[in-house]
Amino acid sequence: MTSRIRLAFALVLCSAGAWAQNPDWIERYRPTADKLIDAAMADTEGYDRLAYLCYRIGHRLSGSESLERAIAWSAEQMKAVGLANVRVIPAMVPHWVRGAESARMLAPVDKPLHMLGLGMSVGTPPGGITAEVVAVSDFAELEKLGRDKVAGKIVLYNEAYRGYGPTVSYRVYGAPRAAALGAAAVLVRSVTPLALQIPHTGMMVYEDAQPHIPAAAVSPEDAMMIARLCADGVPVKVHLEMGAHMEPDAQSGNVIGEIPGKEHPEEVVVIGGHIDSWDVGQGAQDDGASIIASLQALVLMKKLGLEPRRTIRVAFWVNEENGGRGGEAYRAWIGDGIKNQVAAIEMDGGAETPRGFGAMVDANSIELLRQAAHLLDRIGAGEITPGGGGEDIAPLMRDGVAGLGERTSGAHYFDWHHTEADTFDKVDLTDFRKNMAAMAVMGYLLADIPERLVATPVSGRRR
Amino acid sequence: MTSRIRLAFALVLCSAGAWAQNPDWIERYRPTADKLIDAAMADTEGYDRLAYLCYRIGHRLSGSESLERAIAWSAEQMKAVGLANVRVIPAMVPHWVRGAESARMLAPVDKPLHMLGLGMSVGTPPGGITAEVVAVSDFAELEKLGRDKVAGKIVLYNEAYRGYGPTVSYRVYGAPRAAALGAAAVLVRSVTPLALQIPHTGMMVYEDAQPHIPAAAVSPEDAMMIARLCADGVPVKVHLEMGAHMEPDAQSGNVIGEIPGKEHPEEVVVIGGHIDSWDVGQGAQDDGASIIASLQALVLMKKLGLEPRRTIRVAFWVNEENGGRGGEAYRAWIGDGIKNQVAAIEMDGGAETPRGFGAMVDANSIELLRQAAHLLDRIGAGEITPGGGGEDIAPLMRDGVAGLGERTSGAHYFDWHHTEADTFDKVDLTDFRKNMAAMAVMGYLLADIPERLVATPVSGRRR
Repeated sequence: MTSRIRLAFALVLCSAGAWAQNPDWIERYRPTADKLIDAAMADTEGYDRLAYLCYRIGHRLSGSESLERAIAWSAEQMKAVGLANVRVIPAMVPHWVRGAESARMLAPVDKPLHMLGLGMSVGTPPGGITAEVVAVSDFAELEKLGRDKVAGKIVLYNEAYRGYGPTVSYRVYGAPRAAALGAAAVLVRSVTPLALQIPHTGMMVYEDAQPHIPAAAVSPEDAMMIARLCADGVPVKVHLEMGAHMEPDAQSGNVIGEIPGKEHPEEVVVIGGHIDSWDVGQGAQDDGASIIASLQALVLMKKLGLEPRRTIRVAFWVNEENGGRGGEAYRAWIGDGIKNQVAAIEMDGGAETPRGFGAMVDANSIELLRQAAHLLDRIGAGEITPGGGGEDIAPLMRDGVAGLGERTSGAHYFDWHHTEADTFDKVDLTDFRKNMAAMAVMGYLLADIPERLVATPVSGRRR
Repeated sequence: MTSRIRLAFALVLCSAGAWAQNPDWIERYRPTADKLIDAAMADTEGYDRLAYLCYRIGHRLSGSESLERAIAWSAEQMKAVGLANVRVIPAMVPHWVRGAESARMLAPVDKPLHMLGLGMSVGTPPGGITAEVVAVSDFAELEKLGRDKVAGKIVLYNEAYRGYGPTVSYRVYGAPRAAALGAAAVLVRSVTPLALQIPHTGMMVYEDAQPHIPAAAVSPEDAMMIARLCADGVPVKVHLEMGAHMEPDAQSGNVIGEIPGKEHPEEVVVIGGHIDSWDVGQGAQDDGASIIASLQALVLMKKLGLEPRRTIRVAFWVNEENGGRGGEAYRAWIGDGIKNQVAAIEMDGGAETPRGFGAMVDANSIELLRQAAHLLDRIGAGEITPGGGGEDIAPLMRDGVAGLGERTSGAHYFDWHHTEADTFDKVDLTDFRKNMAAMAVMGYLLADIPERLVATPVSGRRR
């Protein structure tokens, strides 16, 4: 998950449907929901598929050979379980390559730093950059230092973790802000609450008006060390070497498969997550577990012989992490059919204990979802909150599709996020099954109930 | 902390002193104890010294140049604060060198593993070892496989963490047990409750009768991955390359300094920890914080003008991690003076929130300590438990000296232990101050009260 939909609400008035007067309607769905939950809680196929994705294919950065293997394997899996209309919707994706990289503190002592270049960063010149470090806690401190003290230096942002949203801006916007003052490169304290000498990568951006300077994450420990030395007045010198570069855009695609609707096959509810990941770890929580849980939700429906009135589709979007091209390509592929996109559910917050869904829909629709979500109370996933969605479905939501984001406890998500430690073992089987159940029940309901959710307008995006 | 004293108790009967009848004696010490605690809780010098040790000197493996720098710096510090009889007691220490090392899974997919060679391991032959892996959960499973299935293979011990004591035996004894069945090398799941793709090194041993085969730790994640692949019947091939080797023993030493006793300078209470560390991280929790807290305990006494009746000595023992030569050299240096070694307090469980002390003393002495420890109740460090000590003071305890081990909450100690993540930031200032206070008060008391603790016999050791 690299981004969140801006919480721009607008109340859209809408006449309440029959469901609002008679919330007992949901009881008609309880036997089906219970069957889906029971099947999910006994499922082993999905967990085995996730193990294969993580252990036999591994991480899946846009442009990489392993992503293309994952895409081919995913299409095979969808066909093997009998989904209809399995296809890869083409998308050209950016092809950023990390290359060889390292960082070393040269003074006051010589020691390697724990680093990971940030996604989309430029590399250093051959031979690297050697410069003194200026450490700042935040942008205000940087601005106060000014060009005199920043020009030619490596800027370290040692922002302590205050939650992902507030802290990630140093990773995303740190380079152009420092470049504007003449910095040679930036190091960013990894965006995480847990310090165990592991760096966290992730997306960064440049501004056209500013020089493009190399940007790398360092472990929280290394950031704290350098900041302390600087605070003590000890000059810190670092050598940074990064082979990062862009290659020409690569051919890739979103993988989809369906259970056609038995009454309105032209109307579609899409559920899914993103198949790409950063080039470290295994992309298990971000976002392998989500795509496999979504796929398995459809597998359970097929096994139980459930055919909702509308088409339910699973989508493995591509390039969520560093471009969002998959979501855009999917939107373009939908074309004028957008009116028939009834709802989109994205799962991109990992597969820890599910809590429910956030939804970018009007107040009546929230109430409808709350009634529906009681079917998930037995697994603790019955909470509906206003606001939600996901990077991959943002282009759909922008054009009026009702968007939901599955929500989890997120207890350790940012310990593992974008690191070598985002691995299969982090996905607990029981939690994984519950997520699968939540996606299956909510997906099935939205594809089957007569009512349609009413989206609230969204605009903009941020990483 | 690599070892614990075996909890072999023997009840030594001893007539109760006057203190037992009148526990109010301790109130006479309360003003002094409070002064020490207040001073500790306001101290910043100690924390600054620890930052210097961690950030400017770094890790300190026996035989390394950085250990010798730490020893020289420590002696300077002791002199600078005015301790008497500052000296380095010579000790020859083993000089194990890690060398270049790496491990790579070659099949079913090619990817680097997160490894750290185990301390004292031999290296691989030049060019490394490439072999199939057999994964076992425990020794019983290994024995069941037998020579047919183990010979020529790399054995992976994927023992899940069940507490340090029970789990560490795979790290320590895994190599000879597998070598006895013809294994080519061993990989050991890191001994830790926290998986964040970080390997934990530590001591291992060989048996003369068995071939000496290379032994390395892998991250919990990599161990789980390999074990799962093996369980699924997927052949796993690993390439292991280690340049580890022994060099001739190196000259090193224990650093000591004293506040001479005003009535019985010949009687000594020694407090301290070990100055050496593994060659990763900064040896902050293991055991840098302990030696600096111990030193600072004496600094506080000096600043407060406190002179106990007996000599109080601080010792920075050497080579605790891979040989125990410092403790032995200290014992040899004491010689016939052993009878005057009144008590020894080791701090080697990190500097998290202190709880109190474990003591290898008789029941009456436990009662005495419990009365005394009430002076530490205000910082939560007033708990006395039977059994305790430390690797460095084990040679003293073996010869009848009353040994105490300082105890902490240990909430995260084994997350960081023997890793790159054992760094200064892990030491919380308030906790550090409390540890300093606990060492100061207990050290002062044992050096000043008329009574002597009565040790219970100890025997043997294990890592």
